[in-house]
Amino acid sequence: MRMSKYLLKTFREAPQDAEVESHKLLIRAGYIQKVSSGVYSYLPLGLRVLVNISQIIRSELNKAGAQELLFPALTPYEWWQESGRDKYFGEILPALIVKARNANFVLGPTHEEVVTKTVSSIVDSYKSLGICVYQIQSKFRDEPRPRFGLVRTKELIMADAYSFDKDKQDMKQSYEIMLNCYEQIFKRLGLKAKKVQATSGAIGGDVNHEFMIESEIGEDFYLFCPECNVALNIEAYSLADAKLNPSEYDLTQQIKYYDTPGLTSVKDVKNFLKNQLPDVKESDFLKTIAAKKNKEIVILLIAGNRQLADTRGFELLNDNDFENHPELIKGFLGPYNLTGNYKIIADYSVRLTPKNGWISGANQKDKHVGGLFPGRDFQINEWEKLSKPIEGDPCPNCAKGLKIHRSVEVGHTFQLGLTYSSKIKDATFLNEQGQPQPYWMGCYGIGVSRLISVIAQCYHDDKGLTWPVNLAPFKIHLIAIDYLKNPEIRVLADELYSQLIEQSIEVLFDDRGLSAGISFNDADLIGIPYQIIIGPKLLNKGKCELKLRSQACLNSGKLEAFENSNVIELDVSHIGSAIKDLLLL
Amino acid sequence: MRMSKYLLKTFREAPQDAEVESHKLLIRAGYIQKVSSGVYSYLPLGLRVLVNISQIIRSELNKAGAQELLFPALTPYEWWQESGRDKYFGEILPALIVKARNANFVLGPTHEEVVTKTVSSIVDSYKSLGICVYQIQSKFRDEPRPRFGLVRTKELIMADAYSFDKDKQDMKQSYEIMLNCYEQIFKRLGLKAKKVQATSGAIGGDVNHEFMIESEIGEDFYLFCPECNVALNIEAYSLADAKLNPSEYDLTQQIKYYDTPGLTSVKDVKNFLKNQLPDVKESDFLKTIAAKKNKEIVILLIAGNRQLADTRGFELLNDNDFENHPELIKGFLGPYNLTGNYKIIADYSVRLTPKNGWISGANQKDKHVGGLFPGRDFQINEWEKLSKPIEGDPCPNCAKGLKIHRSVEVGHTFQLGLTYSSKIKDATFLNEQGQPQPYWMGCYGIGVSRLISVIAQCYHDDKGLTWPVNLAPFKIHLIAIDYLKNPEIRVLADELYSQLIEQSIEVLFDDRGLSAGISFNDADLIGIPYQIIIGPKLLNKGKCELKLRSQACLNSGKLEAFENSNVIELDVSHIGSAIKDLLLL
Repeated sequence: MRMSKYLLKTFREAPQDAEVESHKLLIRAGYIQKVSSGVYSYLPLGLRVLVNISQIIRSELNKAGAQELLFPALTPYEWWQESGRDKYFGEILPALIVKARNANFVLGPTHEEVVTKTVSSIVDSYKSLGICVYQIQSKFRDEPRPRFGLVRTKELIMADAYSFDKDKQDMKQSYEIMLNCYEQIFKRLGLKAKKVQATSGAIGGDVNHEFMIESEIGEDFYLFCPECNVALNIEAYSLADAKLNPSEYDLTQQIKYYDTPGLTSVKDVKNFLKNQLPDVKESDFLKTIAAKKNKEIVILLIAGNRQLADTRGFELLNDNDFENHPELIKGFLGPYNLTGNYKIIADYSVRLTPKNGWISGANQKDKHVGGLFPGRDFQINEWEKLSKPIEGDPCPNCAKGLKIHRSVEVGHTFQLGLTYSSKIKDATFLNEQGQPQPYWMGCYGIGVSRLISVIAQCYHDDKGLTWPVNLAPFKIHLIAIDYLKNPEIRVLADELYSQLIEQSIEVLFDDRGLSAGISFNDADLIGIPYQIIIGPKLLNKGKCELKLRSQACLNSGKLEAFENSNVIELDVSHIGSAIKDLLLL
Repeated sequence: MRMSKYLLKTFREAPQDAEVESHKLLIRAGYIQKVSSGVYSYLPLGLRVLVNISQIIRSELNKAGAQELLFPALTPYEWWQESGRDKYFGEILPALIVKARNANFVLGPTHEEVVTKTVSSIVDSYKSLGICVYQIQSKFRDEPRPRFGLVRTKELIMADAYSFDKDKQDMKQSYEIMLNCYEQIFKRLGLKAKKVQATSGAIGGDVNHEFMIESEIGEDFYLFCPECNVALNIEAYSLADAKLNPSEYDLTQQIKYYDTPGLTSVKDVKNFLKNQLPDVKESDFLKTIAAKKNKEIVILLIAGNRQLADTRGFELLNDNDFENHPELIKGFLGPYNLTGNYKIIADYSVRLTPKNGWISGANQKDKHVGGLFPGRDFQINEWEKLSKPIEGDPCPNCAKGLKIHRSVEVGHTFQLGLTYSSKIKDATFLNEQGQPQPYWMGCYGIGVSRLISVIAQCYHDDKGLTWPVNLAPFKIHLIAIDYLKNPEIRVLADELYSQLIEQSIEVLFDDRGLSAGISFNDADLIGIPYQIIIGPKLLNKGKCELKLRSQACLNSGKLEAFENSNVIELDVSHIGSAIKDLLLL
């Protein structure tokens, strides 16, 4: 493709709404264009990357035995009523409803209802199960806060697959096949995806996994155990399940009072007590919070190194409330010796009792008290999840400290079980005994358009994008310096361009005749893996330059030539064969 | 693909709403499935045909120098206001409006606004023009009467292209390139497409053409001149432009009265006058209709062999009106000697004055009058298009009689000129003098999903579909009779299936072990071009059958083997090489 006539313009400045490098670079290098907040066009360069990614996904899904089909974006509203998801999606669906003549549709944000209806009209015997179908198609979400370019958008391209089996065991087997397929896909995309246990959200089902890429463009967090490799989404973790070792507690420890004049925050009290308790930590404290829920006053307990994350209906007490309840000493609350018959609700972090017991307010002004053990010194009426996990929380498998990773989700797989087939009419097959049985389903989604941003975030440097060879929009960026002024260069470049085209090598040809600086900067920004540079200086010596822009997804044999430098000089007469060799033709 | 696990079910009965064979067969053979009126899913078989069609379109558009990109379906509402098409589309747009948070979108029925905005943000110099971009993407229409399967739907897949040039001459050149490209596409799709002059409708611009396939699933009609090959849509034809030969009129003809007691219809009067005027035809009569427009009474004239087609605001006079206007003799109206000062509006068909003049009512009860010539015997105040063209109307080029063809539109091309660039802000480039100029645009659309139905309508017989080889979902349908019962057949069929897969030959493998009758009927219904049949009888002789289901798009060399029969017997050991040869591998 000749750049002089290509729908491509590079920009020096990134748009104001671009916070991260992938977003800035995809816009600046002319891959995508914003149409509206969270709505993008794929310009010719961007579409080529999208197609390359889609083809890898398609080929791996086909290999895994999945069959491609294509559902409409317009999905009948009554099918969403049948599954009950019209209510679940609540606020989101109305924006996606299309009121056509004689029928209401939902602009499909996902297709479980449609696929269940479709398969149930076709597959009526256990003999035709298991079956797995997929599509690569545009989905619609009324995204409240579009962000990071293609990461969070209102219109997105997804590869969504759905498996149908005759029983739970087969469903699990189909699920395993798809997990392996997804791992293969992300590997071929040059991504280090971590398979993480997750929560099911709007989709449903019991077991499910997210595929996460560690990245600063992520808004998800997962927990990882370096000891035993357990990985799970932060939403899926609860200290309720944490393995603890209560035998470590020193229950002989006596209760001890501390004067803490005017000090109410965990941090201030901790610093003040350092003289007496050199090893004291914030996690030794028990934050005690008086709150109202449904007008009733309750006492919330939470470990001192954590924040109250989710106030679901809790309202903190105001000064007026404290005046009305003089037994509650503001700033010095604690569960020990608390008067008044208040319900005590503890965050699961309160299960992590310190060896020497908790320190909390003493329910006396300017006093704290230490050596408190639940059960011995105070009672807990209810347990709840009131705080988010923090680094070092115990692994649910081995109890060692977990690490927190910021990440972006690129895939999500679900064992749906009977979630949909039990609700949707006639979603059954006949088993060997001729009895109708509901399908055992799984569903699997990859964010295809999002992957462009994720891959760009993983593959860039300070000059621009550095696409892996198998994903790059073109394999070769041919740059002819002085193309318009120098006939010798023009003839040579045109000839090489024709040769490459003839060999079906995808080549972007900079025939614009701009200054070398502009052309080089543009080429580095666009990030095609190989650059061939034909310029007047080297041409006098019968040579041109071959520059390696990206090493990603090249096998090591190809890299040998670039061992000492990312630029090598080649005899002009050898370019053709050098390229053939590099691209393994 | 093994049929035992393929998402495919054939049906004996066609759905009730299927009026035409293509619709019946696509449903019965499991290519598509109805989701809602005018909304379909592409099942795995159907998607394979869709992909084959798309790839042909894509490759020809690429050859023509067009660049593929992808726009969103969500198009900003304010852009439609900018072009003024929010008003033009009037009733249609509201159904397509998506009210997302903070923004209203139109679910794009077409993308002129989006592409103009996009190109204008990228192409700023005449040096980068002409440029042509395209996408293959889902479009949305609030179709009032979905019909004929994929012919008229609410969600459809289109290949829409847009050209941008620096002046009118270049626009015309780009237009010619695309016309040639379209002709090539339809040829490769095995369709005889007729390029027809048309009207521009909602898109705009001056010159435009439709590509029409003659077919009973069409709801369009075009006129064709067998003499000079002029072809134009019936909507684009007007007798106002017809070339006439007034010198043929016999103006010496005298006015002559006829008694026509109680006869008021053209047909009755014509039959009655046959004795006196043996050659009289309905086209010799002038229908004279009294009507009200905006409360004013007007007289409409129209040739006797035509119908008042479009009553746009005309209301026929009722009995009461006739009583109030005794000078208007109901059933015997005519323009000659008409009393009362009524405006006379003539359909352009009144330009086709018969050689001996018109016959009309005589404005006297039970009398008609002949030998009337406009200008000589009556005056016409206004001309309008009140009737539709009929077979035999004069060619606008050579005046010979036109033929009418029922047809379905598969493509439409427009010279838009400045229609959009003059309305949309900054849709300009700098010319050689550095002056901003609006782009000269063209736009071009092919109904990709509709083509599945059109091709199915062209390629079927009474047993089922007969896909051209290059469009068929699979090349080979391998049928193993007694697959489940006969181990010898199973081993042979499995081996052949593996061989074909290994050679990347697309094969559908009937491994269901059903009766031969069911398998044969299904295979003929599905319509894959080659069937290989392995059955117990022939296998004893070391042979199997190769059956040719479709000859379409095979070159003649391949057909030689089937000269005497569409079924040939092959040695089992030779199937592999026979198939290779047939498919030119």
